[in-house]
Amino acid sequence: MGKYVIGIDGGGTGSKGVVADLDGNILCNMKGGPINYVGADTRTIDENIENIIEQGLKGREVSDCAAICIGSAGVSRSDVLANFERILDKTGFTCPHKITTDSHTAHAGALNGEEGIVVIAGTGAICLGVNKAGDSIRVGGYGHIIDDEGSAYYIGRLILRAVIRAFDGRDKKTILSELVYGKLGVNTIPELITWIYSSERSKKDIAALAVLIEEASERGDEVAREIEESAAKELAKLCEPALNFLGGDCRIAVSGSVLQKNRRIRECFKEILKDYTVINAEHEADYGAMLLALKMVK
Amino acid sequence: MGKYVIGIDGGGTGSKGVVADLDGNILCNMKGGPINYVGADTRTIDENIENIIEQGLKGREVSDCAAICIGSAGVSRSDVLANFERILDKTGFTCPHKITTDSHTAHAGALNGEEGIVVIAGTGAICLGVNKAGDSIRVGGYGHIIDDEGSAYYIGRLILRAVIRAFDGRDKKTILSELVYGKLGVNTIPELITWIYSSERSKKDIAALAVLIEEASERGDEVAREIEESAAKELAKLCEPALNFLGGDCRIAVSGSVLQKNRRIRECFKEILKDYTVINAEHEADYGAMLLALKMVK
Repeated sequence: MGKYVIGIDGGGTGSKGVVADLDGNILCNMKGGPINYVGADTRTIDENIENIIEQGLKGREVSDCAAICIGSAGVSRSDVLANFERILDKTGFTCPHKITTDSHTAHAGALNGEEGIVVIAGTGAICLGVNKAGDSIRVGGYGHIIDDEGSAYYIGRLILRAVIRAFDGRDKKTILSELVYGKLGVNTIPELITWIYSSERSKKDIAALAVLIEEASERGDEVAREIEESAAKELAKLCEPALNFLGGDCRIAVSGSVLQKNRRIRECFKEILKDYTVINAEHEADYGAMLLALKMVK
Repeated sequence: MGKYVIGIDGGGTGSKGVVADLDGNILCNMKGGPINYVGADTRTIDENIENIIEQGLKGREVSDCAAICIGSAGVSRSDVLANFERILDKTGFTCPHKITTDSHTAHAGALNGEEGIVVIAGTGAICLGVNKAGDSIRVGGYGHIIDDEGSAYYIGRLILRAVIRAFDGRDKKTILSELVYGKLGVNTIPELITWIYSSERSKKDIAALAVLIEEASERGDEVAREIEESAAKELAKLCEPALNFLGGDCRIAVSGSVLQKNRRIRECFKEILKDYTVINAEHEADYGAMLLALKMVK
């Protein structure tokens, strides 16, 4: 029987990890570089995983590890899964292990390992429901081209859209225009368009504009408020199939920057789902990964 | 005084041209490769322009040309404009010439050179209003990331979105799912997602799905009808600022595949704008370019 478990949350911009004893007491926290094989350089990701595992193993025998769980995007791809398996083999793990999607580890963290629903609205937006038996339903999370509703990218895109439509007279004037101009250091619509369609532009750059919505909304901007309401409505909609799946009697945890930082979106979301218990995520995804590891040995 | 004028419409997938006498009688039609400097190889575009001009000059003296007009996307950029000027110089044109945006030549063609509004809904969507004095207003056309409403790309994206949302239970079932699967030769949602986010995917591939909307709608699919209505509404919205600019007393011409081929979108669009005269585009953009050339010498 091992002495400890490891949980790791591997994200696209950084990774975090937790080592805990078999009672779930935290022994050590780890931090590292990005761990997401999709679209990334395999060698760098390999090194990042090895590095974060090494931090957790400092002063511990790998043979004493009872279980390890890693959450990361893209593990539904067999080549991605194989990479994780290879690294665990190489590092000497022989204990039970689980490689799962980052939404599963986020779910376990947010709901402290219990059944329920998590809605994660960061750059993208996704909802995961898990019932008592451990069966799960995923809603949304199909990427920025067709399924970004409620995410920071969605909000950023609607902000830019509002600026353009105010400019050419299709929609109301909005103070989002001056906020966007100020944040991006541009002065004209052609400059803004050049910024948007630059080959260097990533969806994260557009998602980063989402923070402007709160200031505009607090200053009474109607367009900003409509965008916030639309985001809240879409995020609540993600819960519908999950609530059906779980029978409705469960908690809904909110996670990710949009729902955690934007007060109005969160309140609007709660108002739509007022018949249910909406809570803030209790823990982060690395803690959730640790809980999932613990479940394997209990 | 010259003997003829040349009009050229330079598109991103191909170009067309017209030579006419000074009374506007067509003397010759030309066809050639893409002419759009934005994001394209300059040498190829140079060759394509020279080639289409050559076709028009066959049996004619360049010194007899009274005026030439070329319409193309991206001419608001000074480097793009300079390329066109350079080619005209090289080819020996000394007559008056006009290098303008493709929406201006489309406008002139669609409205036979008269004042009014043109709404062009192809891969993208844009509206241009030109008054009697020749002053113009542009609405929309700011690209697929923030301003695609009503375009074929918009429709294609909403189709894919509907398929995903029907799959995970957020929205109604739709026969668009089987139509998309059939057209793309995919069988599962993961295969569809792989198709959408492939690095080879272009916005034209997604716009090409727009044709499916008509079949689904004719078979009574509610989701398809909602998408058609939303596209029509957005295209009509493009006209509002242009109608204000022109004082409302003008014709609105529709152009591009979405409004020309999709009966329900066109009828819905006409219904929203029932207080105005909506016509089909009278001529194509190359004919419009010829009319603009003719205006320079009259």
